[in-house]
Amino acid sequence: MRTLYVIGIGAGDPEHLTLQAIKAMRRSDVVFIVDKGAGKAELVDVRRGMLAEHAPDCRIVEIPDPPRDRTATGVQAAYEGQVTDWHHRRAALFADAVRRELDYESVGAFLVWGDPALYDSTLRVIDLMLAAKSVEFEYEVIPGITSIQALAAKHRIPLNRIGESIHVTTGRHLAEGLPPGVDNAVIMLDGACAFSDVPGDDFDIYWGGNVGTRNEVLVAGSLRSVEHEIEARRSELKDRAGWVMDTYILRRHRP
Amino acid sequence: MRTLYVIGIGAGDPEHLTLQAIKAMRRSDVVFIVDKGAGKAELVDVRRGMLAEHAPDCRIVEIPDPPRDRTATGVQAAYEGQVTDWHHRRAALFADAVRRELDYESVGAFLVWGDPALYDSTLRVIDLMLAAKSVEFEYEVIPGITSIQALAAKHRIPLNRIGESIHVTTGRHLAEGLPPGVDNAVIMLDGACAFSDVPGDDFDIYWGGNVGTRNEVLVAGSLRSVEHEIEARRSELKDRAGWVMDTYILRRHRP
Repeated sequence: MRTLYVIGIGAGDPEHLTLQAIKAMRRSDVVFIVDKGAGKAELVDVRRGMLAEHAPDCRIVEIPDPPRDRTATGVQAAYEGQVTDWHHRRAALFADAVRRELDYESVGAFLVWGDPALYDSTLRVIDLMLAAKSVEFEYEVIPGITSIQALAAKHRIPLNRIGESIHVTTGRHLAEGLPPGVDNAVIMLDGACAFSDVPGDDFDIYWGGNVGTRNEVLVAGSLRSVEHEIEARRSELKDRAGWVMDTYILRRHRP
Repeated sequence: MRTLYVIGIGAGDPEHLTLQAIKAMRRSDVVFIVDKGAGKAELVDVRRGMLAEHAPDCRIVEIPDPPRDRTATGVQAAYEGQVTDWHHRRAALFADAVRRELDYESVGAFLVWGDPALYDSTLRVIDLMLAAKSVEFEYEVIPGITSIQALAAKHRIPLNRIGESIHVTTGRHLAEGLPPGVDNAVIMLDGACAFSDVPGDDFDIYWGGNVGTRNEVLVAGSLRSVEHEIEARRSELKDRAGWVMDTYILRRHRP
């Protein structure tokens, strides 16, 4: 049976690769890379660099990412509908590519930024491909270092203080307020600096932009004292790198 | 200046090691391994195996873990006090070991199960060592695959559904109830099967014991239908392996 690996490749630093990820790349006949357009060429280049170093014999097939409707604002249901629609179109394109490029004995791989379990659609797209029964395969998931872990390591902090919980969420949810009792929050997918709308002067922030890449920027301090610096450096980073992915930790001061 | 690496080594599977972790091991003159006693010898053996394979020339120094008072139950403040006291004793032992084993030009490493940022005390102990000013060093943190990531990969599930938050917490906190609005929870450090006290029939559970090791056990299903199976298999695992560390994901059914 045809096999697919879904491989977490870490947050940008080629040294985040695990031995398990490298072994899976080497076993792959074909690696599928999703091309997200010119602005994010660096994301494709990092993957190509890893393959050139660790699995130079595998064939690379680029799949263009279907366009995504990003007009929904506000209501979660509308946002989810648009994302689900995009996943269905991805599933159709991925299934075509797998059928076309892999025979029944072959091994293919998808390389996922970070970890496939965290804010990534590949596993959902695979479920849709299997549900549609248009292509058959076995698959295996290989975890990778996330930008959250790379961020905490660079700031040399734990995500939690003793015994505390950690709430991992998105910029959209942060804008609605953190749940009561949350003292440590990790924010991903924030395109709009939602930290600046967190009220009060009760949090420290540990921020990172394009963590793990050559353009990495880190800022830490009391939220109210560094928020404008973060906005400015985020904007410079976007100009310089052509794209920006930021992750940050908010930690409530203890009484 | 003397350098210390705090290296995340993954959740037990030697293939979780990253290239960055291996490089840091190879740069180390001495690796400190904290010995947690006979019941957890496997945890020391896994580390020794990694070093034998990737950094056979480094010297291994075992540090006995100071005894920990585990009598506090209930109140968070008493629990924290006992943990803090244990961290101070660890800091004194670690500082002695670093002073004794490493001169000013040398490189040492601590190998941490999982990731140093997540429910691990090494970074706090390092802060205490620096605050006590009894030994000087630079240090660097290297992230590692956590048991959460290994668990999600083995179950082949994402931690979140589209755009949802993820609440990472402990068995102690789960016993007090999840915060309102939490639909995905990851539970660590649960010595008492706190999942069985989650009320209602509203959750699926994805459970793993000793994930990543040769004794790994996985169970998934509706919480009410598999909770007794998990308790039984957890207890068998503890008998067989001599220790048990379990991690699980609770996911609320969607309407």
